[in-house]
Amino acid sequence: MGTYTADIDVRFRDIDAMGHVNNAVYATYIEQARTRYFRDVLDADISRASTVLASISIDFRRPVELADGEVTVTVDVADLGRSSATMTHEVRVGDAVAAEAEATLVSLDPDTGEPAPIPEEHRAGMESYHDL
Amino acid sequence: MGTYTADIDVRFRDIDAMGHVNNAVYATYIEQARTRYFRDVLDADISRASTVLASISIDFRRPVELADGEVTVTVDVADLGRSSATMTHEVRVGDAVAAEAEATLVSLDPDTGEPAPIPEEHRAGMESYHDL
Amino acid sequence: MGTYTADIDVRFRDIDAMGHVNNAVYATYIEQARTRYFRDVLDADISRASTVLASISIDFRRPVELADGEVTVTVDVADLGRSSATMTHEVRVGDAVAAEAEATLVSLDPDTGEPAPIPEEHRAGMESYHDL
Amino acid sequence: MGTYTADIDVRFRDIDAMGHVNNAVYATYIEQARTRYFRDVLDADISRASTVLASISIDFRRPVELADGEVTVTVDVADLGRSSATMTHEVRVGDAVAAEAEATLVSLDPDTGEPAPIPEEHRAGMESYHDL
Repeated sequence: MGTYTADIDVRFRDIDAMGHVNNAVYATYIEQARTRYFRDVLDADISRASTVLASISIDFRRPVELADGEVTVTVDVADLGRSSATMTHEVRVGDAVAAEAEATLVSLDPDTGEPAPIPEEHRAGMESYHDL
Repeated sequence: MGTYTADIDVRFRDIDAMGHVNNAVYATYIEQARTRYFRDVLDADISRASTVLASISIDFRRPVELADGEVTVTVDVADLGRSSATMTHEVRVGDAVAAEAEATLVSLDPDTGEPAPIPEEHRAGMESYHDL
Repeated sequence: MGTYTADIDVRFRDIDAMGHVNNAVYATYIEQARTRYFRDVLDADISRASTVLASISIDFRRPVELADGEVTVTVDVADLGRSSATMTHEVRVGDAVAAEAEATLVSLDPDTGEPAPIPEEHRAGMESYHDL
Repeated sequence: MGTYTADIDVRFRDIDAMGHVNNAVYATYIEQARTRYFRDVLDADISRASTVLASISIDFRRPVELADGEVTVTVDVADLGRSSATMTHEVRVGDAVAAEAEATLVSLDPDTGEPAPIPEEHRAGMESYHDL
């Protein structure tokens, strides 16, 4: 284990007027990988998790085209704090890296909206999957 | 053969504030099925084809949710005219029909922008695939 | 009164690889006009209304480009039934009609999910605004 | 002058299942502000400019809702290099900052695809507008 991966189909609608996958769509690809990670690794429905995205940064390395067919998005956990987790991602087309990204998630107390400890079963799931 | 099908993953971003796949996304699912149909059945890149969508109509039968995971979109050719083709579609979740749709494509002369005969190899591809 | 109109900015992201506003985005423009119509004419938040889109059909007349800047979407009520309302729309760029559309909304009982009478204040709002 | 601003309407489609503007849509809002900046400040069509987005980072401060109606996106130039420009942005709802972002654009030689000097008229436009 160690690195989780999600294969995501490139849609015609993902392409913009420049003929490449639009920059905002990379955030959607990463979100989709995160959604599957919650399902597969944390056994959780991200729509119901009390977690918000605090930040995202993406470095674009090379364009992705419709003809590429699909991208693979990797998910690693670079830092696991008390209430936040920082994930690192690559968006790959075959062996080529199209983008590198980092996203920080924060757990919230559903009642107060304040940062709260990451649920213990999520922490355990990440530690186990990534050998943290 | 007869009916072409495309399996399309439901993305978190496809869901709207009502908790279901947004109505406009059905048009994107159908476009994505059409894109693959051009590639697989007509051996063509839809981005380079001189074809426009003249109309689309969609009847929504039941909502699609993120937990459904994927939809299957069918592609049939209901009418094959000189310069236009009318395709019918079902958007299915498993055996359940989530939507029925009809879309009419028109071939254009790339120089004049006026309707032009459907390219002979596309016509032959559709007739052969669907036993028209 | 009679016809409600909403001006909607064309975004770079609305444009697809063909250089025109993507077909699915017309459904989003119409949805946005409907959202403002609920707010302005029915004094309602569409996110909280127990209303679903039953069908939509769009006839595309001419492409819309980023340089067009904005579109105007009209909202008329063509048919007002017991539990459903059919709205007709034009998507205009200046005086030119880029698309014509028809959408049918159905009111649902929030508990059973079955069709229910259109709320009386919505019916009165539509009748008054459109002189029905 | 100094800071360019663009007002952008929040669409129903921008909201995701959590009831807030989706994270990827912030990148679209920033892209839209950049599109208008090219038009208004650089007198250029961003679709035809030989410029790519090299990186983007966004810090989310507070959620944006449909009822907020619109956001204001600011555009400043934090660094103007030979072939790249780093823009800083705030996404505001009224006086509140919903997000802060930084985006780096790189000019490319349209023939080779290699980094190239920022066109002189763009450089002059940015220097003049922002008093650089």
